[in-house]
Amino acid sequence: MSIVYDRVALIGLGLIASSIFWASKRGNLAGEVVGYARSADTRDTAREIGLCDTVYDDIRDAVRDADLVVLCVPVGVMGDVVAQIADVLKPGATLTDVGSVKRDVITSVTPHLPQGVHFVPAHPLAGTEHSGPRSGFAELFDNRWSLLVPVDGTAPAATAKLRRFWEGLGANVEEMDADHHDLVLAVTSHAPHLIAYTMVGVADDLRRVTDSEVVKYSAAGFRDFTRIAASDPTMWRDVFLTNKDATLEILGRFTEELFALQRAIRQGDGDHLFDYFTRTRAIRRGIIEAGQDTDAPNFGRTPGQKP
Amino acid sequence: MSIVYDRVALIGLGLIASSIFWASKRGNLAGEVVGYARSADTRDTAREIGLCDTVYDDIRDAVRDADLVVLCVPVGVMGDVVAQIADVLKPGATLTDVGSVKRDVITSVTPHLPQGVHFVPAHPLAGTEHSGPRSGFAELFDNRWSLLVPVDGTAPAATAKLRRFWEGLGANVEEMDADHHDLVLAVTSHAPHLIAYTMVGVADDLRRVTDSEVVKYSAAGFRDFTRIAASDPTMWRDVFLTNKDATLEILGRFTEELFALQRAIRQGDGDHLFDYFTRTRAIRRGIIEAGQDTDAPNFGRTPGQKP
Repeated sequence: MSIVYDRVALIGLGLIASSIFWASKRGNLAGEVVGYARSADTRDTAREIGLCDTVYDDIRDAVRDADLVVLCVPVGVMGDVVAQIADVLKPGATLTDVGSVKRDVITSVTPHLPQGVHFVPAHPLAGTEHSGPRSGFAELFDNRWSLLVPVDGTAPAATAKLRRFWEGLGANVEEMDADHHDLVLAVTSHAPHLIAYTMVGVADDLRRVTDSEVVKYSAAGFRDFTRIAASDPTMWRDVFLTNKDATLEILGRFTEELFALQRAIRQGDGDHLFDYFTRTRAIRRGIIEAGQDTDAPNFGRTPGQKP
Repeated sequence: MSIVYDRVALIGLGLIASSIFWASKRGNLAGEVVGYARSADTRDTAREIGLCDTVYDDIRDAVRDADLVVLCVPVGVMGDVVAQIADVLKPGATLTDVGSVKRDVITSVTPHLPQGVHFVPAHPLAGTEHSGPRSGFAELFDNRWSLLVPVDGTAPAATAKLRRFWEGLGANVEEMDADHHDLVLAVTSHAPHLIAYTMVGVADDLRRVTDSEVVKYSAAGFRDFTRIAASDPTMWRDVFLTNKDATLEILGRFTEELFALQRAIRQGDGDHLFDYFTRTRAIRRGIIEAGQDTDAPNFGRTPGQKP
């Protein structure tokens, strides 16, 4: 692979930004990759572990000469961040983001966008339950999807170049309309996350089943929910607040369906349950065949780790 | 380790029974381990892969001289199976099961129980999303919990011996009252499974988001739900029908909590969401510290498996 951008600036140095850094070094995709984080602690950690060629204390210095600026901050502050840097963005530069919601980011960023800067919203569908500057790794995006959501008037050449960058990071790239993106993600990510958070919260609340029993016996299924419910709270708060309509729509569907299954349980309708559970099994097979998960039992977790 | 029972009979040859077989051979826990399955296909497969020292075509022949009979059939048929074998069970033998629900199994098995046979209900909290005679492996129970639920009048010596057997299979053993077991499992397993089945069913139903998109972009969170929702449909139908009250109670709590979070989203109450999501993160840490899951990102799944 070869250099796609001379200078890349990463704004916000968490899981995604740090993975972009390590993957772009692995692929030699940028002449230099600089960074900025609002928290001095995060900047110190980044310097300590060699995350970014230069870490700046001032966001404006970080973006000043960048050919690509990647916003890796929570969705709720994207607009404010662009307002801070708009007048120092280099003419001809590309501005992109990695937010999990696209319509809201487009709405909040567009008003601040200077003439001559290409805005190409993006969303890599990759992550882990860990967060912060130490959590990134070069392989995070390998064989995952990164969705580009170009806005009206984006130069096709800018989109094509960002596509090359994401492919160099290891991802498969597809383009998608913002509203469709937000609905697809409500189904595949946002609703499942809220449901996992809810179930883990319920378990935590129950007084008759003590915390330690819930934890001790978690291997019966619950522990998979806790992984999802361990994701970054700030990021997820913003996701739900900014993809409100699609998330609430899917949660409404979910509640309807859950009530139907609860009724089947109450009425002893075993056929309804059996048919439903048989249908859902097929989707798992599709995911394995698409290479998006492992077929190893229990995700291939090693058994028998003694405390 | 040394032999705990001279002759063990496994009734039903799926994931749990086949794992008991391989783990008991690994630990040399039984003189011989025989088996029976209702399906001729399953019996053929078992003979082909060397699962069981002898596979019988008649369930009564399988249990006739057994010192330990392990019922590894769906919870809904436990009573019928015991009715078929009750008069050929050896005096002094121990009868146990591996069902995910305990009160209902006790209620349906007890009336058929002959004098002189010790009934010690049990439940290993271990499993995978795979099922059938080929899915077992010797390590399944390592460092997992197996719960013993002795009934009134069970001889303590019979319980102690079954405990040694489960410890030999790799499990940690604890004793518990049937009703408490059913409530703990409703929280840690039954409710999470129903919720996962529901979410996967909703995704399958949505017409605007095609199947292929849901599958393709599943790495954003959804794929973890599909693992749980790929579990054996017959087993899970019976679990919900027989642990009806506790499951419906927990689902009621879940729905209440979900509605509260939906209201917070609708009203834009970010603090409520942030506090909730912060609290759930701590539970994950407890599970890691208890040795019940891996701290590796994404369960340590290897990235980048190309289709």
